[in-house]
Amino acid sequence: MPDMGRLLAEDLVRDVPDFPKPGILFKDITPVVQNHAALKEVVQLLAEWARPKQVDAVVGIEARGFIFGAPIALELGVGFVPLRKLGKLPYNRVAEEYALEYGTNTVEMHADSVQPGQNIIIIDDLLATGGTAAAAARLVERLGGRVAGFGFLIELEFLEGRKVLSPYDVHALIRYP
Amino acid sequence: MPDMGRLLAEDLVRDVPDFPKPGILFKDITPVVQNHAALKEVVQLLAEWARPKQVDAVVGIEARGFIFGAPIALELGVGFVPLRKLGKLPYNRVAEEYALEYGTNTVEMHADSVQPGQNIIIIDDLLATGGTAAAAARLVERLGGRVAGFGFLIELEFLEGRKVLSPYDVHALIRYP
Repeated sequence: MPDMGRLLAEDLVRDVPDFPKPGILFKDITPVVQNHAALKEVVQLLAEWARPKQVDAVVGIEARGFIFGAPIALELGVGFVPLRKLGKLPYNRVAEEYALEYGTNTVEMHADSVQPGQNIIIIDDLLATGGTAAAAARLVERLGGRVAGFGFLIELEFLEGRKVLSPYDVHALIRYP
Repeated sequence: MPDMGRLLAEDLVRDVPDFPKPGILFKDITPVVQNHAALKEVVQLLAEWARPKQVDAVVGIEARGFIFGAPIALELGVGFVPLRKLGKLPYNRVAEEYALEYGTNTVEMHADSVQPGQNIIIIDDLLATGGTAAAAARLVERLGGRVAGFGFLIELEFLEGRKVLSPYDVHALIRYP
């Protein structure tokens, strides 16, 4: 018998060794989104978590964050804001840099995508070191928004991204110690 | 009085001159997705178009195609398949190259993402020359799927992408001559 507390999505996450480089065990979420029931489960659970927050908009982190973020926005009755890699957004932008293992990366949002005083949740598929998510929060706050929390399908607890995002509310449906 | 035949989304598409390079008038769809009613309108209209096709899965083209494709898959009661740029998908893949103005580009799908005999629709935000969409169709067919049609928010008719995708069913909500 299936464990009633276990998510369908958890059974579908696929471990891919040595991607994107040797020694990394990649959590592949494509089998989750390819399964209608699992995709629906993830969207509904993250929307349930977000609903009491009176969210004004959902920010999704490029690219897998779009797959969950847009349906969550529709479920919550609000708009969807894409956070993108450097050079992808065409209009007036704000940018934030964050550190990688080697070098830096930059993410951008449109300057008119968040209004002062709005309650924002930030969605991505996976929380690793938290660098991108923290940069997303800085962008939202530079635009005058309030970060009401971060929602993830997966959290890699051993990378301690949750500490980087403290004291924000961080919610992950599946946590790997 | 508003024209009842006109989409809310059409009023929200933003023209950005000289992006990504001089001489290009870029159609920015972020104001559409940031507006809940407009995002919902686009998803529902494309889902209505697709519903009679008995679709088994929705393929979305990275990255803006994810924003519309995932909600359309949820609306249709099927799974979502991401088509990604080279090197982004971790598992066993099939790849197709297509021509750009200068050089080539490559897109990939997971080899297990479409099953033989499945009816597939391919979703993106915008139809320009049709190169990416045609490569997506070749990938679906290499995996044994049947392309039931292409759905776009926007079609740039002067680039004649529709010809490249002939004889497939091509549906666009907003067409610029």
